[in-house]
Amino acid sequence: MYIISLPRQRIKFPYDAEAKESLLNILVARQVFIESPCGGRKSCGKCKIKHLGGELSPLSVDEEQSLTQKEIEEGIRLACHVCPAGDLEIDVIDQEENHPVLTGGYVPEYKRHPAIWKKVIEISKPTLADQTPYEELFKKALDLERLPWEVLRRITMGNGTYTAVYNQDQLIGLEKGDTFESLYGVAVDIGTTTVVASLIDLRTGEEVDSEAAINAQKNFGQDVLTRITYVLEHEEQGREQLQSAIVGSLNDMIRTMCVRRQIDPAHIYEVAIAANCTMMHMVLGVDPLPIGKSPYAPIFVAEKEIPARDIGLTALSAFARVYCLPAVSSYIGADIVAGAYVARLHERKDKVLFIDIGTNGEMVLANRGELVSCSCAAGPALEGMNISCGMRAADGAIEDIHFHPETGFALEVIGQKRPLGLCGSGILAVIRELLKHDFINARGNLVKPEQLEAGDPRLPYIELDGKKRMIRISEEPGKLLITQGDIRQVQLAKSAILSGFVALVNASGLSFADLDEVIVAGQFGAHLPVDSLVGTDILPSAVQEKVSYIGNSSKTGAYLALMSLEARQEMSALARSLDYMELSMTDGYERIFVDCSQFKVK
Amino acid sequence: MYIISLPRQRIKFPYDAEAKESLLNILVARQVFIESPCGGRKSCGKCKIKHLGGELSPLSVDEEQSLTQKEIEEGIRLACHVCPAGDLEIDVIDQEENHPVLTGGYVPEYKRHPAIWKKVIEISKPTLADQTPYEELFKKALDLERLPWEVLRRITMGNGTYTAVYNQDQLIGLEKGDTFESLYGVAVDIGTTTVVASLIDLRTGEEVDSEAAINAQKNFGQDVLTRITYVLEHEEQGREQLQSAIVGSLNDMIRTMCVRRQIDPAHIYEVAIAANCTMMHMVLGVDPLPIGKSPYAPIFVAEKEIPARDIGLTALSAFARVYCLPAVSSYIGADIVAGAYVARLHERKDKVLFIDIGTNGEMVLANRGELVSCSCAAGPALEGMNISCGMRAADGAIEDIHFHPETGFALEVIGQKRPLGLCGSGILAVIRELLKHDFINARGNLVKPEQLEAGDPRLPYIELDGKKRMIRISEEPGKLLITQGDIRQVQLAKSAILSGFVALVNASGLSFADLDEVIVAGQFGAHLPVDSLVGTDILPSAVQEKVSYIGNSSKTGAYLALMSLEARQEMSALARSLDYMELSMTDGYERIFVDCSQFKVK
Repeated sequence: MYIISLPRQRIKFPYDAEAKESLLNILVARQVFIESPCGGRKSCGKCKIKHLGGELSPLSVDEEQSLTQKEIEEGIRLACHVCPAGDLEIDVIDQEENHPVLTGGYVPEYKRHPAIWKKVIEISKPTLADQTPYEELFKKALDLERLPWEVLRRITMGNGTYTAVYNQDQLIGLEKGDTFESLYGVAVDIGTTTVVASLIDLRTGEEVDSEAAINAQKNFGQDVLTRITYVLEHEEQGREQLQSAIVGSLNDMIRTMCVRRQIDPAHIYEVAIAANCTMMHMVLGVDPLPIGKSPYAPIFVAEKEIPARDIGLTALSAFARVYCLPAVSSYIGADIVAGAYVARLHERKDKVLFIDIGTNGEMVLANRGELVSCSCAAGPALEGMNISCGMRAADGAIEDIHFHPETGFALEVIGQKRPLGLCGSGILAVIRELLKHDFINARGNLVKPEQLEAGDPRLPYIELDGKKRMIRISEEPGKLLITQGDIRQVQLAKSAILSGFVALVNASGLSFADLDEVIVAGQFGAHLPVDSLVGTDILPSAVQEKVSYIGNSSKTGAYLALMSLEARQEMSALARSLDYMELSMTDGYERIFVDCSQFKVK
Repeated sequence: MYIISLPRQRIKFPYDAEAKESLLNILVARQVFIESPCGGRKSCGKCKIKHLGGELSPLSVDEEQSLTQKEIEEGIRLACHVCPAGDLEIDVIDQEENHPVLTGGYVPEYKRHPAIWKKVIEISKPTLADQTPYEELFKKALDLERLPWEVLRRITMGNGTYTAVYNQDQLIGLEKGDTFESLYGVAVDIGTTTVVASLIDLRTGEEVDSEAAINAQKNFGQDVLTRITYVLEHEEQGREQLQSAIVGSLNDMIRTMCVRRQIDPAHIYEVAIAANCTMMHMVLGVDPLPIGKSPYAPIFVAEKEIPARDIGLTALSAFARVYCLPAVSSYIGADIVAGAYVARLHERKDKVLFIDIGTNGEMVLANRGELVSCSCAAGPALEGMNISCGMRAADGAIEDIHFHPETGFALEVIGQKRPLGLCGSGILAVIRELLKHDFINARGNLVKPEQLEAGDPRLPYIELDGKKRMIRISEEPGKLLITQGDIRQVQLAKSAILSGFVALVNASGLSFADLDEVIVAGQFGAHLPVDSLVGTDILPSAVQEKVSYIGNSSKTGAYLALMSLEARQEMSALARSLDYMELSMTDGYERIFVDCSQFKVK
């Protein structure tokens, strides 16, 4: 194992040099995203990195053509062309000033124009002869007709120098002294399972720190419907519990980053949130019940801009704001709008499918700028839940697997530890291998041992529990067994996702072959290799060569909302123009679903 | 003792028929205020009451002329003319529909136009084919471009019928079902010592209930400066403690009234508050420190309209509002603006002095519509504090006293109980009698027993403690002693008030004789009879015949702010036009104060 380090980004990780993968793929797999519009197909010449030290493959002819002489002298290389073979030290090149690297997601270009800004003012001091109230002094100094109550209530006497904090054209706070240099925001993606947050310097766009946590709402149910049911059963109290669970997680994460970076939380003025529609209702404390019940009309989808204290976000400035990105419907949330925007779907002239794979599978088809979306309930199988030996992607989780007739199952385990279970990518890999080697047939049924000839290399891995057949993927008897039930769980997930895909493509009068690109989004999706997605028939083989990964585009959308009012407007316009197809109302959808439940590939 | 009852107002109280006082005076002393613009001088013919039962003096010639034949047949009488002589049952006549009786205060005419109003709407229900979010349905039904966050966050699914609650043109809430008939507000006067609140039906202006309580901030200090010092020493925590003390009192009072009248607190939508400037800062949680420190510039004086939840007022609708009446300066608060407005000072064409006597004495001189105010620190002596045998106006408190050379001190005790101490009015009465009978001289010094001849009727009441002289007002030796220190406390209070009065009149180029009326405001002031105020030289004898009482005009101002947007506007205009004279900056004020410290009258 060798190490790749990115000293400027404070990133360091081990990689497998024997896999002979391109540096681009290695970086993307580790969620270090750099611009690569061609998706690694060596055609765009944009994925520039700077070689600082260590071994690299020699300059290719393509690189010599794409790079200037100056770039070559400076050690610039194209990440899709180079193949590291030892310890390596590199720097990721920002394409321009406004194009920083964000942990876990590719950031497109944007116009830097944050909603929050500051101005330093001086006020005159009252005297016995002129007892003008402070409110009037500030109104005069700030040229305002009215001092907002939220500002007034927090005024305290100072030495005359104050810093006014604005949200667009609205004064939101007054701070004693000159605090001009300290201006931070937080970009947040709230997933049903995971929450990630980045602390951003709003003056520069720099990501100061990032943090991830398990969504504390998991105590109230693993999926959104269970949590909505909890609210139904516990009414307002339940709503408050779910809200304070997630808000508590956010407060904790913000505090952790502030302590680590020695930043005063009072200088954080905005939190931008992208999330699915249920999470957005819950973090705001809005009634989620309509989302869980036909006809699935949510309370709101439009963007929201509200005081952070209103929802209990207190680990920041007392007058901080929350900006919530817009959604489309109950099952196409702000996370998908953010993703579609980060993927520039609204600007694409070709045909692109954007897909976010998780407990719900959401997808957007962009057909020459026309956007249609749909959503399907994949269930948590692909994330390692409801699988008999499923587990989270932690040390001991099998993340990939290969079956060789001679040597049996070869496992790749996170942390090179003793295998404990299967994480999401491991589960897909198992199903892929079981299909490839005919352990299961197109209907998803496990092969019966009596159908196999003696000496068949698969026989030793089939275990029986009465009439129940199971596949053992470990060498230890009775350990790491794949059941028929596990296979059904994956089959259901894949039927749901693929049938949505088919329904969308059908409705647009397209075929899979017409698609120019399939963009896989999400932190989770980034861990699902193309060969597993296609090998398990979640994505049809027709798109195998067209898959690219965009990372956590939900958080990136939140980042853009923090940094650019223009991005906010464009995301709102995108949300309004994005059509939603309710699959349960789509003619012939049931037949599509049944068709898609078959494993077609080998 | 006979009983007067007002069945419609649910008021019943005993009175002394032998005092042969006019019914008007008896009612006013009990804080049942009826319109009497002439102040009981039998000239306006407005103080109409309806005689329902019991003995009354016969119809006077004046009454025959003032009343119509129909009124006489209905039993209408003028309260200033009739003299009750036994048990009596009456009704107070509202001059017109918009002219209700408010506990403890006279209510002038006003235009009924509350800020809060309701509208019932129906929304269409979403379907699977049309999953329009609820936010959009409400925007359409209410013809709004934006649904305020405060409204949206509280939306829950209903059967399609909702009641929209507005604050002027702003939607503030949506209630499930039709709640049109339930619309309440609360008018509050926060005094440093006492808090009073009236629950008002906003549809009719009717006072549904009223409640009084001790300001729970008393635990942090009796006067405003001690409480400000507490905040100085305990910083933000102290500010929060003082805020939650007073807000807690308000929540308790509102709950008590709601339980008693079986009204759902969720149907209370507005609380209008009048208070002095320090109390207003403290109830809103705004920094009061600048008020306590030269140059005494407050944070704010302008009217405020804010969410009730922001200050912790929770015993009412979650989206209720608080309206705070405007003030003039740190020491001329919204209570005085309210009083000046209720007394119609801005409309008076003559010369009127308005005075509110309490721990602080605030006064407004209206000189043909020009209003000037000043404030003086009277100290708590007139409210029975810092007096060796002082107490609150409760059972056992001496409220009046008379000295007869033959029979000694005759005490009037609240509740006809054994005398325990002196309340404010009792203290003034004592000083009045001591002055009248030369127990003390013009400089406030107690007479020495050696200066008196043997057999002087005063001698038995002078007690000596070493060289210290004291006046015993009870027959029991050593009980109820008035010390030289007690006299000095009252003397300081009287100097402060009278000197303010003199400074104001001087500054306007007037003399006392020029004044057409002196209006005494405040719950406490209503208990101070003219003969005590003049007899202790707090008010000069030149105004003795011109004194009238207006009751708790601070709460009445809050009531008008609840019931009439026009009254709000007029009060704000009045506050802006009211000049403030800082006594400490006034030439010659020190000399005036020294002059006023002398007791001039006998």
